[in-house]
Formats: sequence, structure tokens, C-alpha cells
Amino acid sequence: MFRTIEWLDDTNEVRLVDQTKLPLIKAHIITSSHERIAHAIKVMEIRGAPAIGAAAGMGMALAALESNAKSKNELLAFLRKAANTLNTRPTAVNLTWATRRMLKVAEDAEGDIANIIQRLIDEAKEIAEEDVRMCRSIGENSLGLIKPGFTIQTICNAGSLATVHLGTVGAVIRVAHEKYDGDIKVYAAETRPRQQGARLTVFEMMEDGIDTTLITDGMIGTVFREGRIDCCVVGADRILRTGHIINKIGTYTMAITAKYHNIPFYVAAPTSTIDMDTNPEDVVIEERNGDEIRVINGQYITVPNAKVYNPAFDMTPPELVTAIITDKGVVHDPTEEKMRSLFD
Amino acid sequence: MFRTIEWLDDTNEVRLVDQTKLPLIKAHIITSSHERIAHAIKVMEIRGAPAIGAAAGMGMALAALESNAKSKNELLAFLRKAANTLNTRPTAVNLTWATRRMLKVAEDAEGDIANIIQRLIDEAKEIAEEDVRMCRSIGENSLGLIKPGFTIQTICNAGSLATVHLGTVGAVIRVAHEKYDGDIKVYAAETRPRQQGARLTVFEMMEDGIDTTLITDGMIGTVFREGRIDCCVVGADRILRTGHIINKIGTYTMAITAKYHNIPFYVAAPTSTIDMDTNPEDVVIEERNGDEIRVINGQYITVPNAKVYNPAFDMTPPELVTAIITDKGVVHDPTEEKMRSLFD
Repeated sequence: MFRTIEWLDDTNEVRLVDQTKLPLIKAHIITSSHERIAHAIKVMEIRGAPAIGAAAGMGMALAALESNAKSKNELLAFLRKAANTLNTRPTAVNLTWATRRMLKVAEDAEGDIANIIQRLIDEAKEIAEEDVRMCRSIGENSLGLIKPGFTIQTICNAGSLATVHLGTVGAVIRVAHEKYDGDIKVYAAETRPRQQGARLTVFEMMEDGIDTTLITDGMIGTVFREGRIDCCVVGADRILRTGHIINKIGTYTMAITAKYHNIPFYVAAPTSTIDMDTNPEDVVIEERNGDEIRVINGQYITVPNAKVYNPAFDMTPPELVTAIITDKGVVHDPTEEKMRSLFD
Repeated sequence: MFRTIEWLDDTNEVRLVDQTKLPLIKAHIITSSHERIAHAIKVMEIRGAPAIGAAAGMGMALAALESNAKSKNELLAFLRKAANTLNTRPTAVNLTWATRRMLKVAEDAEGDIANIIQRLIDEAKEIAEEDVRMCRSIGENSLGLIKPGFTIQTICNAGSLATVHLGTVGAVIRVAHEKYDGDIKVYAAETRPRQQGARLTVFEMMEDGIDTTLITDGMIGTVFREGRIDCCVVGADRILRTGHIINKIGTYTMAITAKYHNIPFYVAAPTSTIDMDTNPEDVVIEERNGDEIRVINGQYITVPNAKVYNPAFDMTPPELVTAIITDKGVVHDPTEEKMRSLFD
């Protein structure tokens, strides 16, 4: 299984998958430059909150290696500049979180410059490993729900490519695939408008040798009715304390269709995704540029001035959710009380 | 409102919309050659069962004008050859139906060659007009269900472009638009894989000045929940005596989602679509080439050797159908008994 981003110990370089070229070209970027990492974050060669947090951490370690600092103060000054350079997407909280964490480590570190640099490299690798462990916990916690021989329906991409390794939904699939000697299949919904299912999920599942079938979003009713699917597993961009799930557009339609066929509908996400403050009626769904619908691969698929409606996410109510699988355990038939107990 | 195909009286030519260029280029083919009509049918410049029936009829009339026949027998021989030429899609029953009907008219006609040719022109125009009247009846019969101010959700294209004029679902929308002084809106689902909603429905609704919003197939749950839609109106490729609806893939998922939101789900189709013989369990759904999913406008949207499942149609059970609107009347909550009564 490939990693989205990785520290290469032999050469002290960072290697990452160039996601702008997927799925037709599988290219890696290998760099020893923190400015190259900043560029990769900016142009979305790497994307997904956990993945760009790890990228920023590794970018800070590369900066330390690049600096000609002769004192700790000179190094700290260089790192603060590097942190600014790496914060190319101001709304991405993981970027500031990771660069601050790295700066703190540098400030607290003792010994000579070489020692501080080593501490930074270790910390960057630890940020990545925490993400890997979080994903693995989600996968381990799902084993009671996913049985050998299951076929899992997914939507969008909550796989490796949004995290350092495994993914969230990706971990559910990969851990089962590993434990059940490969006896797991996947149906990936294309996920228009941006087609992350077709572009990313199919790609990364095929890379790992997991039997994956691509369908269009309207086919879910048919594959459910034909008995092809044992359960749905979807990711979440945000989970409310009420158990409402905000995720990629199409998730809600899939949840309704699963309920009609009595197919379990599972949500896999880290506890960091849970928002204990917002009420369902206060959630604002981002409406994105209409050309995401009108244009595919640079070509119009409809009348160029067609009116479109393009909500990026939808909200699935808890009555359609069979269970939420987190790194801290599984919540069946989610309620506010059960969601709170995750944090006890 | 444009017609898909039309006889031009002034010049005795046929004009048809070139559907292979839609929606980006709006071009007409104008021809006096029956061989050109045969080519248009073959390469799907014109498609849809009623539309190609009308095309074949007009092709026969053009052939009569093209012939140098000096006797009725010479004319009949030429027309039989023309009928073969026009039958370019052997499974399309409308083609043989239309060419046989035209041959019969020629055989039965009396008077000189000019008279016979005029009878053929009249009959070709009558075939087209029958289709227009059938569609208009569907539209008129739907007026009890569609109220002023309604927003109608559609899938695929059951519009003018599949018929001579108006369409089936198209007639429901256009007749309401006409009667209610334009106070009708449409949401068109893209309808992957072949995107007939985005390519054809959006185009022809915009041509007629009907307020139309394009959404992707996964967005139906959200637009239903947000109260944007008053009813769904979909076409049918086949309707069973049990009230099961076979239509474009995605229809069944839409019907389930409509039911969950208590949104009426209407099917608009001519009685010629009703199959009184086949049982639901005997319906075989055509599985089409996987590249329809993998490739859009000549470009891969996924891994080129991705495994796909591509059923072209799905089946919606009668418990999800609020009413079937036909040219002979409306069937509410369809049952076998009510379906039979359409033919009394």
C-alpha cells in the first residue's frame, strides 16, 4: 500500500503522490525543499486535511535542514519564515496547527543545531504516524461490523489520498482486506460533479489490489436491489452532536436508498470531525462554481450558459445512520448522549 | 418550439435537428435524399422511437419524389428498395412499422404517379402528426396533476428530441408552460452515464424559454429536502401490466428518494409503451459498454482498465409510482386491473 506522503530516511527527502495527475499518471514528487512542499500544498498536488498537516510538518523539517543557521535563534527565525511560506491555504487549520507544533518543538529542544534538526524530523514523522494510527484505529474498530465476503458501497474519496495512509473509509476497507485475506469487494460511486470516486477511490483501491467496481451515482438503487451490496461506508466532513452527517453531495440520497433496502449505512470518521456546538438548522452548505457541473476535463457537457445548482455537501439525519465508526469506538444509532460519551 | 423533424412543403424537403452536434452546435440537416435520411437514422443524427418512425415515413416520401418511375409497378419496386435502405437499425420496430405503412399506402393508392406521390407525402406528414397529437394528449391529460407554479424534476430526455414535437415528459412540461403563462420550472438531472439530461433536456427546455436548472444525479435528495420540487415526471421505455416502470438508470433511485420526501412521482408515456405480457421477474436489463462510464467526450475520467457495472435501465415498482399519464388517460396508483382498463 502506498503512502500519500512519506519521509525518506536515507536521503532526508519527502516523497508525495502528485494528485493533480491522477488517475491517468502516477507520478511522485521527491524534494528536499520546503518551498516545493508549500507549492504542492498550494496547487493541491496534495490535499485533504490530515495529509496537508503532515506535509506542513515535513516541510518544516526540510526547512531546518536547508537553513545555514549557526545558532538556535537563527534557526528559529528561519523556521518562522518557513511556517509563513507553508501556510498557503489560510483556511486549512491543519497547516497552522502543524507548523505551530513544529515551532514549539524547535523552541523547546535542547542541544546543538544537529540535535534540534533531528527532533524536528522525528516530530514530522510522528505527525504522519499519528494520522496513520488514527486511521488504523477506525479500521480496527469497524471489524465487528464488516464481515468476510462483504461488498462495501462507497461515495467520494475518504481514502489514503486524503490522509497519510489508509484513509478513514479506506481504513475500514483495507483493515478488513488484510484480516480477511482479501475477501472484501468495493463498489465506488462516481460522485459527480468532481468525480472523486472515479478518479481517486478507484485508483487507490486498484493500487492495493482490492476488487473495485465503478458505478454512476444513479445506479445505487439497482445495485442495492440486486443484492450486490452488504453495507455502505461513507466519510464525513463534519458530524454534529445530534448525529447528523455532513458529507459530499450524494451521501444523503445514498442513505435514503440504503434505508429502503435495509442495507446498513456506516459513517467512518475521526473524532476530530465531531462538532459538538453547531445545530443542524445552522449548518450552511457551501454552493460551488457551476462550471464544476457544466465542464468535465475542460469540455462542456451541457449548454455553456445552463443554469445549475451546485451544493458541495449534504446533511444526512441520524435516523438514516446505522453507526458511526471513529478512532475511539463505534456509536450505534447515534444520539446526542451517545456522541457525548465518546469524549468521556 | 422547434420540431425534431419536419416536412418542408415549399421545397418538398425534410429538415431535421442534427442531434450528434447538440448541445454545443445547433445545426439542421435539410435534404431531398432518402439515402441521406437513412444515414441520419444510422448515425443517430435522429434518435428516439417515434422520431425515427417519422423519419422513415418521410424518407419513403422523398424516395417517391426521387424515383423516375413511369408506372406504379416501377414506383413500388423503387419504394421497396428504399424501405430496405431506410431500415438501418434492425431492432427499431418503428422503422419497419413506418416503411410498411408507407408501402401499403402506395399499393392502395389510385390515379397517376403524381397522385401516388402526393398520397405518400400526406401519409408521412400524418405519421408525424399522429406523434404530435399523442404527445399533446399526454400533456393535456397531465393538467389535473400539474399546477401553476410547479417545479418539475426530470431525468434523462423524454422530450421533443425523442419524438417529432413536444415529447412525452416534454409535453407535460410544455402544455403546462403554455396553459399557465410560463409559470412552470424544471430541474433536470444530468443522467450519467450518457448525460441526456445535461445534453438534451437542458438544451430543448432553454430553446423553449422554460426556466431549467441542471443538477447532478446525487443532488436529488438535497433538492427534494429543500422543498425545491413539487413533483417528478419521468418517461418510460416499457411499462408492465403490473405497473412496473422500466426507464433510464437512476429512475428507481429517484423514485425511492421522492417517496421518502412524499413528493409525487409521475410517469408520462404513450399507451404503445405498455407491455401487457411480460412479468417483472422476466425483464432483462441491458448492460452496456463500460466505456460509457469511463470516458466522457473522448477522455478517461477514471483508471482506463477500471472495472465497471453499466446497466442501462432500471425497474421501479408500482408502490413508488403515484400515477401513469398516458395519451388515453391517467392511471393513479397503478394496478393490473387499472392498466387493463386503459385498453377497454
